Amino acid sequence: MAGSVFGTNLTISTWGESHGAGVGVVIDGVPAGIPLLSEDIQKFLDRRRPGQSAFTTPRKESDMVEILSGVYEGLTTGCPVSMMIRNADQHSKDYGALEHVYRPGHADYTYAMKYGIRDHRGGGRSSGRETIGRVSAGALCWKALNYMGIFAQTFTRSVADVEISEFKPDEISRNPLYMPDQKAAEKASKLIKEAMKEGDSLGGVVECRISGVPAGIGEPAFQKLDALLAQAMLSIGAAKGFEMGDGFLASRLKGSENNDSFRMENENVVKTTNHSGGVLGGISDGSEVCFKVAFKPTPSISKPQETVTDAGEDTTITIAGRHDPIIVPRAVVVVESMAGIVLLDLMCRGAGSRLENLEKIYVSVD
Amino acid sequence: MAGSVFGTNLTISTWGESHGAGVGVVIDGVPAGIPLLSEDIQKFLDRRRPGQSAFTTPRKESDMVEILSGVYEGLTTGCPVSMMIRNADQHSKDYGALEHVYRPGHADYTYAMKYGIRDHRGGGRSSGRETIGRVSAGALCWKALNYMGIFAQTFTRSVADVEISEFKPDEISRNPLYMPDQKAAEKASKLIKEAMKEGDSLGGVVECRISGVPAGIGEPAFQKLDALLAQAMLSIGAAKGFEMGDGFLASRLKGSENNDSFRMENENVVKTTNHSGGVLGGISDGSEVCFKVAFKPTPSISKPQETVTDAGEDTTITIAGRHDPIIVPRAVVVVESMAGIVLLDLMCRGAGSRLENLEKIYVSVD
Amino acid sequence: MAGSVFGTNLTISTWGESHGAGVGVVIDGVPAGIPLLSEDIQKFLDRRRPGQSAFTTPRKESDMVEILSGVYEGLTTGCPVSMMIRNADQHSKDYGALEHVYRPGHADYTYAMKYGIRDHRGGGRSSGRETIGRVSAGALCWKALNYMGIFAQTFTRSVADVEISEFKPDEISRNPLYMPDQKAAEKASKLIKEAMKEGDSLGGVVECRISGVPAGIGEPAFQKLDALLAQAMLSIGAAKGFEMGDGFLASRLKGSENNDSFRMENENVVKTTNHSGGVLGGISDGSEVCFKVAFKPTPSISKPQETVTDAGEDTTITIAGRHDPIIVPRAVVVVESMAGIVLLDLMCRGAGSRLENLEKIYVSVD
Amino acid sequence: MAGSVFGTNLTISTWGESHGAGVGVVIDGVPAGIPLLSEDIQKFLDRRRPGQSAFTTPRKESDMVEILSGVYEGLTTGCPVSMMIRNADQHSKDYGALEHVYRPGHADYTYAMKYGIRDHRGGGRSSGRETIGRVSAGALCWKALNYMGIFAQTFTRSVADVEISEFKPDEISRNPLYMPDQKAAEKASKLIKEAMKEGDSLGGVVECRISGVPAGIGEPAFQKLDALLAQAMLSIGAAKGFEMGDGFLASRLKGSENNDSFRMENENVVKTTNHSGGVLGGISDGSEVCFKVAFKPTPSISKPQETVTDAGEDTTITIAGRHDPIIVPRAVVVVESMAGIVLLDLMCRGAGSRLENLEKIYVSVD
Repeated sequence: MAGSVFGTNLTISTWGESHGAGVGVVIDGVPAGIPLLSEDIQKFLDRRRPGQSAFTTPRKESDMVEILSGVYEGLTTGCPVSMMIRNADQHSKDYGALEHVYRPGHADYTYAMKYGIRDHRGGGRSSGRETIGRVSAGALCWKALNYMGIFAQTFTRSVADVEISEFKPDEISRNPLYMPDQKAAEKASKLIKEAMKEGDSLGGVVECRISGVPAGIGEPAFQKLDALLAQAMLSIGAAKGFEMGDGFLASRLKGSENNDSFRMENENVVKTTNHSGGVLGGISDGSEVCFKVAFKPTPSISKPQETVTDAGEDTTITIAGRHDPIIVPRAVVVVESMAGIVLLDLMCRGAGSRLENLEKIYVSVD
Repeated sequence: MAGSVFGTNLTISTWGESHGAGVGVVIDGVPAGIPLLSEDIQKFLDRRRPGQSAFTTPRKESDMVEILSGVYEGLTTGCPVSMMIRNADQHSKDYGALEHVYRPGHADYTYAMKYGIRDHRGGGRSSGRETIGRVSAGALCWKALNYMGIFAQTFTRSVADVEISEFKPDEISRNPLYMPDQKAAEKASKLIKEAMKEGDSLGGVVECRISGVPAGIGEPAFQKLDALLAQAMLSIGAAKGFEMGDGFLASRLKGSENNDSFRMENENVVKTTNHSGGVLGGISDGSEVCFKVAFKPTPSISKPQETVTDAGEDTTITIAGRHDPIIVPRAVVVVESMAGIVLLDLMCRGAGSRLENLEKIYVSVD
Repeated sequence: MAGSVFGTNLTISTWGESHGAGVGVVIDGVPAGIPLLSEDIQKFLDRRRPGQSAFTTPRKESDMVEILSGVYEGLTTGCPVSMMIRNADQHSKDYGALEHVYRPGHADYTYAMKYGIRDHRGGGRSSGRETIGRVSAGALCWKALNYMGIFAQTFTRSVADVEISEFKPDEISRNPLYMPDQKAAEKASKLIKEAMKEGDSLGGVVECRISGVPAGIGEPAFQKLDALLAQAMLSIGAAKGFEMGDGFLASRLKGSENNDSFRMENENVVKTTNHSGGVLGGISDGSEVCFKVAFKPTPSISKPQETVTDAGEDTTITIAGRHDPIIVPRAVVVVESMAGIVLLDLMCRGAGSRLENLEKIYVSVD
Repeated sequence: MAGSVFGTNLTISTWGESHGAGVGVVIDGVPAGIPLLSEDIQKFLDRRRPGQSAFTTPRKESDMVEILSGVYEGLTTGCPVSMMIRNADQHSKDYGALEHVYRPGHADYTYAMKYGIRDHRGGGRSSGRETIGRVSAGALCWKALNYMGIFAQTFTRSVADVEISEFKPDEISRNPLYMPDQKAAEKASKLIKEAMKEGDSLGGVVECRISGVPAGIGEPAFQKLDALLAQAMLSIGAAKGFEMGDGFLASRLKGSENNDSFRMENENVVKTTNHSGGVLGGISDGSEVCFKVAFKPTPSISKPQETVTDAGEDTTITIAGRHDPIIVPRAVVVVESMAGIVLLDLMCRGAGSRLENLEKIYVSVD
C-alpha cells in the first residue's frame, strides 16, 4: 500500500497539507462496538494544539474534528471512520518568500526531487499538521484499548541536556512541557526561552509506558511489536531515534545484567526487571511496554542559514513566521497515538493466531 | 500480510526454524535482468556464518544456499526467487533440558503465550538462524543496487563501552569483529574473552553507511525511508535501538547546529554536513544514508539464572550448548541485508511516483 | 489492509454511509503531475447521478465533489488526494419501518451478524452511495490514463434478456441506458417500464473495452490483470459475474477456435482475434482489454416479500421509498472507474519490473 | 505486495517454474494448533496429479511434498509453513523448438514484453505446475476449515457443451472427470477423446459448494467474500469467468425472482432459496457458498497454428510434447484450494471485527 496508509487489519489513511482545505484520516477495520464521541477525539487533538503556552507557535488552530462516518448512535459500526479537521488561520503569504528556496532541515528539496513539483506553503504535506490525522485515529484506538484495561503514560523525558530525575505521573499534565518532574520542567523552560531569544530551537526525548498489555501481542519476524513501533515512531516528522526498553544502553550491559529473570507471583509469570521494555522476540511479555523516541530541534529557526534556490544558486535565508521553539511537547500525544494504532491493529490480527480462538468466535456461537 | 512477510513491491517471505529441515526465503517482485549466481548469495551468507573466530559459536553451519527458482541463464526473470539452506549439525538434545523452562531474554515464554504451543529446540523460529533468509534476500538486492552505483559499508561501531575512534574502511574485513579501527578491535576482543570466561555475553552497535543513493527515495508519512529502516532493523532478533544520522544526539543539539546547510557544488545540490543521515522528510537527499542499530548482549549465557517452568514453578537454569558471546559481528551483514531490501523495494515503488516516469517507460516505447 | 482499502501502489480508501454526513475517498500513491480540476471528477460523478431519467430513482443527489488535498496549482503533487461529497436530500424516516427487518437481497442480515450492530438507514455502508468514492478515484485515474493514450468505452450490453446486436459507440451517451444499440435500448426501456409498473426490478450486463493498454501490464499469479479486475468488479454491490474476453463462452470452444493467432503488422505483433480479452497469463497483450460484469436486479422492490425481523419472527415487507428499477445504467461508470484504478495501480507497480527501467529513472538522471 | 503473494492475515507466497528445481509455497499466518501431516497435503496433490487417466497428460509427476517448517509434533506452530515439491521427469528439450516462438493462448509473448526475458521451458512460471503451491496451501487451510465444520464439494459442471443434469456427490470421485452425473461424464469422455484425435482441446466449468460457513465472513467493499473468490479464481491460469450463485443468470431475472426470502427455522434465520450463492453484501449469510469458474480449452494443441517469432517474423507452429486435452478435471482441486485459502484468511481477519471478540480472547483470559 502507498506511503500515507498504515496498518494491516486496522488501516489508517491520512491526508492533507498545511495550507490546503484541511487534514484528516480514514480508519478502516475498526472493531464494531467502541463507544465514540467527538469529544473523545477532541481531547487528544487539544493535547497537540498550538498556542497554549509560551513554548508553542502562537498560530491559532482551532482544530475542531468532524466525524463523518462509521459511528451510529454513539458506537463504531465496523465501517470506515472518516474524520476531518478544516484548516484555518492560514498565512500562506508568510511562505511566499520560500517558494523557490529549500529550507535546511526540511523536506523541501527532497519532495522536489521525488515529485518534480511541490506545495511550498508551510511544508505542504510534510508539515506537522499531517499528524492531526494520526492523533484522531489514535484517540479512537485508545478508546478501545482503555476499554480492555490498557493505558498509556506518555511524557517528555528530556529537553536538550535536561533529563528528568524523578517520575511523578501527576506532574505530567501540570507543566506545558509534559515532564513528570517539576524541577526538570523549570530548568528546561529556561533553556527554551534562551533558545527563543537567540532565534534558535531545541530537541528532546519522549517516553511512552503502556500498562495492561496482555502477553502474546506482536507478529514474529518483520511485524514484531517493537519493529512496528519503531516504524510508527520514525514515521513522525522530526523523529531521529527509537529505543525499546533500555535501547542503546542495553548494548553496554552484559547478558547477566540485561536479561530479565522470570518468577511466579500470585500464579502469574512476572519479570523481576524490565530491561526489555515489555517485549521478548517481538511479542509482548505481559510487563509494561516502554520505549523512547528522540526528536531533533525544530528545523525552522530565525537565525540566518546558508542554502540554495531551486534554480541552483547559493543563498541565505531567515525563516520568519510562527514556529515552535521545540516540537517535543506537542509530539507527546502523537507518539501515544501511533502506539495505540500499532497495538490495536496487532490485537485485531492476533485474534486469529490460534485455531482455538477461531473456534471460540465462530463455532461456539452454535 | 502476515508477520514473516516484508515489503511492498519487492516482497520477501522467510521461513524456517533452528532445528527443522532448513531455512529459506522467497523473494517476489525482483526486477528482471539482475545477474545472479549462487556465489553472490554465498558471499553474504559466509559473512554471518558461525565458527569463524573465537568470538562466534563453534557450531559448524555449512549454510550452502540452493537457488530454486526465478533465475534463468544467470539472470533474474522477474519471477519469485526461492532460496533454501538445509539445516545441519543439529544438536537437538542440547535443548531437551529446556523443553519446559522459559529462558530469560528469549522468546520462549511469549511464543507459548501467543500460540499455545512452541518448538523449544534452539529457539525455533525466534532463533538467529531465521536471519539466513534475510541475508540471502539482501545479497540479491545488493546485486541490483551495486549495479546502479549504490554501495554499503557496514561495521561494528562499538562493543560494550569500546567505541571506534577512527574509521578505516579497509580495516573492517581484517578483524573478526568487523571494526574499522584496529585498536578498538583489539580492546574489544579482550573484553569479549573476559566475558566468555565469566560465562557472560556482550552487546554492541552496528553502523551502516550507504553511498550513491539518488535523492527522492522514500514514501512520505508511514513509509519514509527511515521509518522502514527502523522497522527492518528492530525486526532483527536482538536489536533494541535505532538511530538515523545523529539519532539521540540530535535531541541535544540546537536547530542551528543540527540543520544541514545546502550549497551548490559542480551544479549539484550538496549538504555541508550530514546530521540528518541522508534523509529529509523521510526521503533520501542524495547524501550518504547513515544509521546505527543497538544490539543487546546474547541472552544465552552459562551463568545460572532465575526463571520459571511452563508448569508455573520457580527454577534456576544454566544454559549449556554453544552460543555466541556477542551477536554483533554476525549481525553486521544482517543489518546490511535488511537495508538493501528496504532500498530496492522503495526504488521499485518510487518508479511510478511521477506521470513523466510512467510515460518514459510505457509511452516512449513506441 | 482492511476491506474498504484497495490497491498496492495506488491505494484508495473509501468511506461513508447512505445517511451519514457524506461519502468520500482518499487516493494515495497518485503519480505527481496529473492535471486535475473538480470538473474532471464531476463529469464522472454526473454519469452515476440519479434523477436523470425515468429509469433512475427520483432522489435528488447533487453530489458536488470537493477536492480537499493533493492538488496544487492544478496538478497532483504525489500526496494523498482526499475528496468528499456531502450527503443531502436524506429521507431517513423512509427507513424507520425497516429498522428491525432484514430486507431480502440486501446486506442487512449479514452486517448484523458480522458486526452485531448496523446502521439500517438506506443500507448504511452497503448502499450504492458507497460507489461515489470509487467513481471519484476512477475519474482521477482516467485523467492519467487518457494522458498516456489509454481510453475506455463502457456500456450496457444487456438488460434482462435484451442484448445489443450492434455496437455504435456514439449511441452510448444518447440513451439513458448507455446502450450502443438504439433499438435494443428502446426494447429495454419498455421492459423496465413494465417492471416498474409491477413494482419489480431488472438486472443486466455491463461491458468495458479499453484501448491503448501497452503489452506487459499485470503481475503474474495472484495479481493478474484479469484477477484484479475480477476482484474490483465483484466488489461492486450488485455484481454477480465476471467474464474476461469470451468468458464462459470460451469454456465451450475448442483450443483451435479459442486461441488467438499472432501475426506481424507494421513491425508490431498483433492478434488476429481477441477471444482472450487482451490478456495472456494475466498480463496485457497489447490488444483491447475487454470484460463483462453481470448485475442482479435491484433488491429493493415494492412487491411484498417474506422475511424475518431481528427479533427472529417471520414477517412480510413492502419496501417503499425511491429506488432504481435497474442498477445497470448507473453501474456503467462504476465499472469504468474500478478498471481505471486497477490499471493505473498496475502500471505504477510494473514500472519497477525490469532493472533497466530502474536505471532509466534513477541512474540516467546524472 | 508482489504478484505471487496472496492474502492478508494468512499470506501465501508461491514460487517455482515448470522446468526449474521445483515448486513450492510458504504459508504465513497459519493459526497454531492445526493437526498436519504430509499425507494431508499429498491427498490434495494427488487430485491434481497428471497421468492418472486417458484425459490427462501422460507426464509422470510424482509430486511428493516435503513440509520444511512450521509444524512441530504434528501441529502447526503459528510459524511459516514452507512446502516444496521437487520437479522431476523434465523434458526440457521438448521445448527447444519453442525458444524463439510465441505460442498462441500462452503467456510467452506477454512475459517477454513485461520482463524482457523469459524462461521458455514449459511455460516457466506461467505453467500449470505453478498451482502445486496453491494446492499445498489449500490442503492445509481445509484441515482447519474441516475442523470447524466447513466442507467443500467441488466438481466439473460442464465439459464443452455437456452439462450435468443431476447432482450425485458420491459420483464425483468415481469418474476421472470429477462429474457428479455419470451419464454426463460418459458423454463428456467421448467428446474429449474426439478432440484428442483431432489434436485439439476442450474447456469447461468447475463448480464449488461450501457448507458450514458461519454468517458474517467477508470484509465489506473491496474484500467481499465474493470479490476475493473472484480474484482467487481468475488468478488460476486458464480461468476466464466467475459466477457467484446464479451469476449471469441473475442478470436475466426480476428482483422478485432473484431475491432470496428469509424465514425462521428452528430459531435460525434461513433463506428459502439461494440465488445469491451464500453471500449478501459480500458477507456470508449462513447458507451454502456456491460459485462457478469457466476454464478455456488447453492452449497447447498439436494442430498447426499461425504465430510469430521473437525476431518479429510470421511462422507456423505445431506443439508437440505431452499436454492435457482438457484442464478442467485437474483444476477442480485448484479451485477448492483457492476457496479454502480465501475463507480461512477472512475468518482470521474477521476474528477482530467486534470489540467483544477481542475481549473474549484477550480479557476473559484473566
